[in-house]
This record gives sequence, structure tokens and C-alpha cells, in this order.
Amino acid sequence: MTRSRHDEMDYRGRQRRVVEVLKAKRLDALLVTHLPNVRYLCGFTGSAGVLLVVSNRFTFFTDGRYRVQARAEVQGAKLEVSQGAVMDAAVRALAEARVKTVAVESEHLSMAMAGQVARMLRPKMRVRPTRGLAEELRMVKEPAEVERIRAAVQLASKLFDTAVAAVRPGVPERAVAAELEYAARKAGADAMSFDTIVAAGPRSALPHGRASTHLIPQQGFVVLDFGVILSGYCSDMTRTLYVGKPAARARRLYDVVREAQQAAIDVVRPGKTVAEVDRAARSVLRRAGLGRYFPHSTGHGVGLEIHEPPRVASGLQDVMQPGMVITIEPGVYVPGYGGVRIEDVVVVTTNSCAVLTPTTKELLTL
Amino acid sequence: MTRSRHDEMDYRGRQRRVVEVLKAKRLDALLVTHLPNVRYLCGFTGSAGVLLVVSNRFTFFTDGRYRVQARAEVQGAKLEVSQGAVMDAAVRALAEARVKTVAVESEHLSMAMAGQVARMLRPKMRVRPTRGLAEELRMVKEPAEVERIRAAVQLASKLFDTAVAAVRPGVPERAVAAELEYAARKAGADAMSFDTIVAAGPRSALPHGRASTHLIPQQGFVVLDFGVILSGYCSDMTRTLYVGKPAARARRLYDVVREAQQAAIDVVRPGKTVAEVDRAARSVLRRAGLGRYFPHSTGHGVGLEIHEPPRVASGLQDVMQPGMVITIEPGVYVPGYGGVRIEDVVVVTTNSCAVLTPTTKELLTL
Repeated sequence: MTRSRHDEMDYRGRQRRVVEVLKAKRLDALLVTHLPNVRYLCGFTGSAGVLLVVSNRFTFFTDGRYRVQARAEVQGAKLEVSQGAVMDAAVRALAEARVKTVAVESEHLSMAMAGQVARMLRPKMRVRPTRGLAEELRMVKEPAEVERIRAAVQLASKLFDTAVAAVRPGVPERAVAAELEYAARKAGADAMSFDTIVAAGPRSALPHGRASTHLIPQQGFVVLDFGVILSGYCSDMTRTLYVGKPAARARRLYDVVREAQQAAIDVVRPGKTVAEVDRAARSVLRRAGLGRYFPHSTGHGVGLEIHEPPRVASGLQDVMQPGMVITIEPGVYVPGYGGVRIEDVVVVTTNSCAVLTPTTKELLTL
Repeated sequence: MTRSRHDEMDYRGRQRRVVEVLKAKRLDALLVTHLPNVRYLCGFTGSAGVLLVVSNRFTFFTDGRYRVQARAEVQGAKLEVSQGAVMDAAVRALAEARVKTVAVESEHLSMAMAGQVARMLRPKMRVRPTRGLAEELRMVKEPAEVERIRAAVQLASKLFDTAVAAVRPGVPERAVAAELEYAARKAGADAMSFDTIVAAGPRSALPHGRASTHLIPQQGFVVLDFGVILSGYCSDMTRTLYVGKPAARARRLYDVVREAQQAAIDVVRPGKTVAEVDRAARSVLRRAGLGRYFPHSTGHGVGLEIHEPPRVASGLQDVMQPGMVITIEPGVYVPGYGGVRIEDVVVVTTNSCAVLTPTTKELLTL
């Protein structure tokens, strides 16, 4: 149980906003099944719980394992500890509420569970699939949330130095991850925010090269991509080192990615779309003839989850607002040769943005 | 990328069996979206991939990030690397296959995704929700799988000693987890199989007491519940220590849980149901007047996932078969006082069972 300082977090405000959204969409009730949304709306940090919103009343359902924890954590919601399955208890309560339209989180409710909900409700009740209803509220962070993300980002930056100290030829990638994660735990991280990526030599050309038993070579790029969860909030950072003396090709690859990353950051401000940010990075890479080596999007929102809206990608029209927190992480991956990625966490401010990640982006050579 | 020794794993046999199941259920195709099932059926270990089975042909879809890894890992399936969303590519291929009935994994497909699949298919095609189709095959482990689980269990047992060495009054629970996880990484674990539980003193009464910043007290129980993933397979073990000199009440609590755990193990053999195993543990606790302090089920299957079928719980009629691997983990949680849980991994043998966890179950006092 990772107790958070509840006082900082505006649960009542969030609950008020979700009630407004339901009203605007003419929905009588909402079944919140996605745990990060449950946490956002009422503070529960455990692994089994459902939040039911009926008109402006909130009821949180959990099971016996979480009775004590839920009592300590849950804010602004009535607590119900069920004997059997938590979901059954929540849906039974819903069936008795005599509402007409029930919103569910269609991206976070399995087809099997959706069928069960529909069968348990009264015949006149309608299940309305919704997408991103709570996530949309979560996109714009409260100041206390930004501070938590900042703390997680700063911790990760400190840990980066520990990781760098462990990088040398002949060391398995996993040993670097071990040192990093050990230091993270010692420093009070709840956990890592995703499987640590340490991808060395030709493996740096794998955008998702989880730390493996491969050894760090005498020469080549090493991509380190990792994050910590601190007081529930995630950080995410990537830096690429070079072991040995980089040839001109390696330097050029690095410089172009760095330029692309900066170009994207320079676009981030209220009113710009995520597609414009993505385009800024992509154009730099394309002009350098490297466009085809950048197969992923430029970034993503980060907060209670490591990946949350908005996605920073082409074709998407989400508009930046103050308080949004996103990653900017273009990369270039040349099969058989190696790859480079550079990633910061950025918060949108009133008229521009602030880079939260303090680590240098100079090419570090070892 | 954690390369496994593919030769050991019988992918062709698994594919043959899944084809037989589809035939028996009169299903023309199956869309495998649950990653552990994808891994089981074709060997892919990454985080984005869909396996499509049409009659007896297997096609694996992933995106550009996993091209290299998929080529190295995927067995017995044609490889398709999609430009856009992997799911879209798989469903487009399915729509062109001119089949009638398409099975989906209803527990592992979101309501939103299910809707999308239905919209993309031809009007005459029928989506059939299935549950546990691949999981049922996975319940009975191949000998090579049992060996991997055994290796993971044995590694965890060794790590337990490291954890115990870190337990002393005044140390934060998280520091114990840090030592344990560091040793796990150093020893070659892919990752921990779930958030490490270190629950000391009154927190031992939380069945899911993830390691927190709380300090280990001068006196009381400490529950350690953790597992590693080694070559893709999970282990899971719990031991409860006592810091200080246990009073009679603590000793009794421990002894009753130990007796309940042994009683459940004694029932495990082919032909018995999971409910009978659960009942054996529950009866011991009930006779000791502690039944109401045991709020969870007695165990669960373990393999590629930390929780997989069968659940070892009352009311369930799954019958034990040789090759099944389950945990046996009754516990007792007295609010405000403390809790005890003891957990082993057990494999069902031809006429009985074998406990894979070598760690002693004597009450360890520190």
C-alpha cells in the first residue's frame, strides 16, 4: 500500500467534473473499471476495485483483501466491501439504481465482462460504450500532479548516472538494468514504470529492446529507456550513449535525432496540435533522409499511466492545453547498424512548454 | 528481447491442438489477442502482436518495431509486418479469408475492439466470443515447461535467503524488496512476476501488502510474497517470518496455516477437483476458528502468467490432471494484529503431486 498525500489531490473537483461530463452526455451512470481511472477519481491504489457513479453519488466496490486499504485511501465515495466478485456487486447495485443509460469504459471492459453487465442489468437499461471519458479529464494535470511527475522525472535523471556508471564493454545489458532498478528502489520508487530498455550495439536498432543477456560491445550505441513510478506518477526518459569513439556516421545520426527532438519541443505550446509536434520531428528526419527509420510516433501523455492520452502522432488533432504532460521521443533505427532515441518529459505551460528532464542531451561517449 | 530455446517448446503440437479444438467447436478461424496465448502458440515474446488462425494456417501480425525480433522468434506461422495498427492488419486479412465463424478471446478483447472487429468483417461473418480456449491447453504443461517453472521456483527460493538477510527492525519494507529484486536481476531473471509483497507487523494482515515505506517493527510477522520470471515462466512463493520472539498466539496462527497448507497439498492428485483442494485448507482453518480470516482462494495456476487457470477455489469443478502446475497458498489475516501466508508451487504428477518449492516451512524467527 503506497499511501499518497491525499490532501494535495483534488478528488472532489475530479468527481464534480466527471458528473458534469455525464450530465452533458445525458448518461445516468458510469461504471469505472480501469484502475488508473478509479485511482484518479477516488484515490484507491489497489488492484481490485470498481467505482460506480450514479448521478452525483459515488460508490467504490472492493473485496475483503482491500478493506483496510480502501478505508484509508478512498475519498468522496461510499465504500462497499463485497463477498464475491467485485464487478458483480457493482452491477447489482447499478441494477437496483433504476437508471436508464449506463456508460461503460469500452476500451477497458472485456467483451466477456460487457456481456455479463448487459445480462445483469434490467431489460430497460441501456449500456453505452464510451471511450476516454475519464482519460480526457486526466490529460490536463493539476499542479500537484505536475509536481509528482516532476519528482519522478528528477529521480529518473539521478538514476541515469547510476546506469551510465554500469555501462562498459562485456557487461550484460541486464546488469545495467539491475543497477538502475536497485538504485530506484533504494531511492523510494514504487516500481519501474515499464520494462527497462537497455539496447546495446546492433540491438539499439530495436525500438523496444528490453534489457537482455546480450553483452555491451566494444563499440556502438547504447539506448537506455526507463522510468520510475513515484507516489503513483510515472516518468519516462531515454538517452543514447556511445561506447568507443563514434565515427562520423554515428555522430551524424545522433545529431539529427537531437535536432528532430528539439524541433518537436519547440512546437509544443497551447493551441498547437499533437500532429504539428509530430510533424516537426518527422520533417527533420525526413530532410536528413532518415524518415523511413522512424517507425513510431513522437510521444505520448504520461501521468498515472506510462502511456496515456494524448498520443503525439500524425493524423491526430488533439490540441495542446496548459497542464498537459507529454513525452517527446523521436528515434532512428538502422537495422544491423544501430539506433538512437532521445526522450524528455515536457509540460505545456500557459504560453509555451517546460522540459522537466534535466539530463544533458550532449552525446555521452564512454 | 529474451530469446528462449525454441527447440524445447512444442509449438507445432500446440498449433495442432488448437486446430483440433477449433474443428471440434465448428469455428473457422481464431483471432488470438492475449499476448501470453500468442507466445504459447507461436513463440513471440514482444508486446505487440496478433496471431490469426484460419483453418490450419497460422499468420502472425506485428509492427515495424518488432520485425527483427519476430523473425527470430516466431515458429510455425507466416510473418506479416504491418504499417498501421496490428489489429487492423489481422482483421483485414481475416475479412479476406472468406470464413464464416470467427472466434475471439472474449476475456482479452475489449468491448471497443470487439466492435471494431465486427465492423471490419464481411456482413455474413459471425464473431463468436470464446473463453479460455488457449488457456485450457496451457493448463497442462509440457515437461519442458515444468522444467522452466522449476528453474524459476528454485531461483526464487535462493533469492528468499537474500531477502531474509535484509529483514531487520527499522528497515523499510521496500529496502527488503530492493535487495531481493536486485539479486533477481543479477541472477538472470527476466523480471519479477508481480509487485513484490513485503508486509510487516500489522501490515501483514493485508493479503496484498506491496512493499511500502513502512519500517519493519521490533516484533511481529513479516510476509514475503514474490516471484521471478525466468525464460518466460513465472514462480510464486510466500513465506512468513517472525521478528522478535513469537508469543503463543503467533505460533498457533502460524502452525494452523502451515497445517492448512499441508492438508491442501495432500489432496492434490489427478482426479481431484480444485474445490476439494480448497476445502481441505479451509476446513483446517475453520476448525481452528479462523475461517473468517481467510478471504481469498487457496491457489491458482502458474506458467507464462502469474495467474492462469485453474483457480483453486470453492465451487469450481476443474479436475486435476498430470502436468498442471498450481500454487497452494492459504492465509489468515487478523486486522490490527497480523497475518500469515505460506505458499508453494506444486506440479500434479501421474498419481500424486510434487512440491517444487524447496524452502523450509518451519517458522523462521529473527
